[in-house]
Amino acid sequence: MKHYISIQDIDNINTWIQEAKALKRNPLNYKELGKNKTLGLLFFNSSLRTRLSTQKAALNLGMDPIVMNVSGDAWGIEFGDGTIMNGNTAEHIKEAAAVISQYCDIIAVRAFPSLTDKEKDESEQVLKAFVKYASVPIVNMESATGHPLQALTDAITISENTKKERPKVVLSWAPHIKALPHAVANSFVEAMQKMDVEFVITHPEGYDLNPEIIGESTVNYNQNEALKDADFVYVKNWSSYGDYGKVLNTDPNWMITKEKIGNAKFMHCLPVRRNLIVEDAVLDSDSSLVIEQANNRTYAAQLVLKKILEDLK
Amino acid sequence: MKHYISIQDIDNINTWIQEAKALKRNPLNYKELGKNKTLGLLFFNSSLRTRLSTQKAALNLGMDPIVMNVSGDAWGIEFGDGTIMNGNTAEHIKEAAAVISQYCDIIAVRAFPSLTDKEKDESEQVLKAFVKYASVPIVNMESATGHPLQALTDAITISENTKKERPKVVLSWAPHIKALPHAVANSFVEAMQKMDVEFVITHPEGYDLNPEIIGESTVNYNQNEALKDADFVYVKNWSSYGDYGKVLNTDPNWMITKEKIGNAKFMHCLPVRRNLIVEDAVLDSDSSLVIEQANNRTYAAQLVLKKILEDLK
Amino acid sequence: MKHYISIQDIDNINTWIQEAKALKRNPLNYKELGKNKTLGLLFFNSSLRTRLSTQKAALNLGMDPIVMNVSGDAWGIEFGDGTIMNGNTAEHIKEAAAVISQYCDIIAVRAFPSLTDKEKDESEQVLKAFVKYASVPIVNMESATGHPLQALTDAITISENTKKERPKVVLSWAPHIKALPHAVANSFVEAMQKMDVEFVITHPEGYDLNPEIIGESTVNYNQNEALKDADFVYVKNWSSYGDYGKVLNTDPNWMITKEKIGNAKFMHCLPVRRNLIVEDAVLDSDSSLVIEQANNRTYAAQLVLKKILEDLK
Repeated sequence: MKHYISIQDIDNINTWIQEAKALKRNPLNYKELGKNKTLGLLFFNSSLRTRLSTQKAALNLGMDPIVMNVSGDAWGIEFGDGTIMNGNTAEHIKEAAAVISQYCDIIAVRAFPSLTDKEKDESEQVLKAFVKYASVPIVNMESATGHPLQALTDAITISENTKKERPKVVLSWAPHIKALPHAVANSFVEAMQKMDVEFVITHPEGYDLNPEIIGESTVNYNQNEALKDADFVYVKNWSSYGDYGKVLNTDPNWMITKEKIGNAKFMHCLPVRRNLIVEDAVLDSDSSLVIEQANNRTYAAQLVLKKILEDLK
Repeated sequence: MKHYISIQDIDNINTWIQEAKALKRNPLNYKELGKNKTLGLLFFNSSLRTRLSTQKAALNLGMDPIVMNVSGDAWGIEFGDGTIMNGNTAEHIKEAAAVISQYCDIIAVRAFPSLTDKEKDESEQVLKAFVKYASVPIVNMESATGHPLQALTDAITISENTKKERPKVVLSWAPHIKALPHAVANSFVEAMQKMDVEFVITHPEGYDLNPEIIGESTVNYNQNEALKDADFVYVKNWSSYGDYGKVLNTDPNWMITKEKIGNAKFMHCLPVRRNLIVEDAVLDSDSSLVIEQANNRTYAAQLVLKKILEDLK
Repeated sequence: MKHYISIQDIDNINTWIQEAKALKRNPLNYKELGKNKTLGLLFFNSSLRTRLSTQKAALNLGMDPIVMNVSGDAWGIEFGDGTIMNGNTAEHIKEAAAVISQYCDIIAVRAFPSLTDKEKDESEQVLKAFVKYASVPIVNMESATGHPLQALTDAITISENTKKERPKVVLSWAPHIKALPHAVANSFVEAMQKMDVEFVITHPEGYDLNPEIIGESTVNYNQNEALKDADFVYVKNWSSYGDYGKVLNTDPNWMITKEKIGNAKFMHCLPVRRNLIVEDAVLDSDSSLVIEQANNRTYAAQLVLKKILEDLK
């Protein structure tokens, strides 16, 4: 595997899940694989789980992680083609990506969307520029439209916790005060489409995700109907896609409650706002898988890095 | 040992001092102990000595340190119970602490007090929340009311430098322009109470520390009397405890001078403001132990980490 | 070698170039040399190449790098002698440098000039203070007046790419909208003076560099004349030295174009502002050596660290 940019880079999600579980059982089995290899972690945005779990994954493989907060630590990066750089950006991505490739064997990048310029966000300007101008493999640590390390994690977690051959998985929108990206929801949808699950998406009208991603997946605007007999309820807020980046609805009735979720397992990528997205009673119960999801971030990242390292040899 | 939260977690300070000295002589003797173990260093506030010495200590034990400036790198953390999180905080400590525990074998935390809300500061909200919600050991890298890594360092330094069985140690307040925490003073008092020293605290009226910490320790408002025949003078500013967080006195006569200190050794946790807390002539003389104190920070941290690692096995 | 402060610390640049090339061929040959040694990287300013390449160099030598952004991570540092520290700085360099020396075997420092106070900048206050008060070797990662790791890199790159015994090297000023330091230009001039090259400096009138550095080197205010028959064109903006720190000229005719550069190789320390300093056509052509320069930063830093480590033993 060259890059890990989207869920579509996973050839066989069931095989990957099995491989990730094997890594989880013996995380240090490949400690020699990454020896003398450097992972550059570039953050254009805040990060806790991704920051720590990806470093941990690299360490498990014997790699040396180097972390950089791009905005604070380095220079403003220009992405435009042909720009006369007489403004605030001091370095072009063409040089930045090529240069960082001189020091890092793999580059992992986090770059959130603007949520104001749909076309620019969908072009995945930052991530694609790294793919284009770097000379080493690129790992997506959450980009404008996808968060495939998270979705791989979620697939592993569902696989570990299901008691059925074909569980019912519901992706439910929940209210939030801020405009949030579609990345987590998009990649989760794509992951579920690759798994043998009964999958339903539920959200208020006006919150339909990108139809190209939704494809044939079932969407039900009635949350109660959608949640019926669910085995896993994956909860996430996102801003409107149609009325791009807008918060159209903050209806607290969409908050996930103990009553709504019933016997289903609760999942969320975190960070989660308590009593806005989901009530305490759910998060503090045995139904919640969020901490196990966070734990699996390490093994999802480690599997991706392992596959890239094996391909580098 | 599970956590290292306060000086009270030291069962026998004299034994610990001897063990720290042994580590100082052979800092790499336990390089295998921390292999494949990760230390997470979480900073809610600035740090130089603690940041570097704790990393160095971890490296000496073969651990992998991962540093995170919580505010800048990650998400605003909520500590309230039952809060509807529709404000500025994006992640609850319940999740944050449990999540970080998935990636780090030990978590070290620095979180200063507000100095405006006495009750909240004394509740040690941040540190206690990590103890409660993390599933791994917690090390206090200076909390609202204590700095036990510093005080252990100070105990080691006094033990190394004393020429008497029972030296006289004076903790003297000194003027500062800003309101500073009580943490260093508190832990130093507690450490001295555990050692076989003649201990006197001196400060202007209105600067009495928490009476529960002071206990039976001697307080003298007359600095000259207190300093008489001192072997070690530990200097530190703190804001008022009674009139909580206020600067009541900036009298330059309380600054430590060469004349005042006589033949005593000068100690300070650093950073120290020259010619405000203490005159250059003291810091630049052989009487000053501040650099040796800083050096001992490594071995105090290493001893604490070593004890926790041994307990993890 | 004790410190690496300026190009003048290189005893024989040709030998150093050969040694760096050998390291580049076998970067892991000295992996044991830096074992259990810590490199502290202190940044008072932004950095991308230096930050990453110096860490990579340290890792290649088996060292543990510890990075600190001084302003954000630690305390405001005071450099004045005898100051009454009742202002914004909380820690004196005397303590800071001595303290960091307790945790790091080598300290590397980046500290840019003010460009407003010539005398202060030329005194190299920050770097010199570290040299004076630290007890370990200091490496200059770009100071007020020099960037010797960059210039060593440049010397290596010219040596690797020259087809002549004595190539013609031109240092050309180029326009920029901001006032930039003289450090890169200064150290490049000093490096070229040590090499067997035909060296010409070209810039608009009013942009003469420090005459003590220029010495006998040729200066030609006519860029076209200077560039004639050049083999290497090293491009860099700097602010006026005479009218200290001022931007006197932004004439776009000084921008480097494909036409101007002809068959010469283009060099720049990066970050470079495209279509202001140099047009895309140059940077995107085979004439550009900028990425190879960035690559050589690792080996320049590694050579310097190796020499210091060998001297520490």
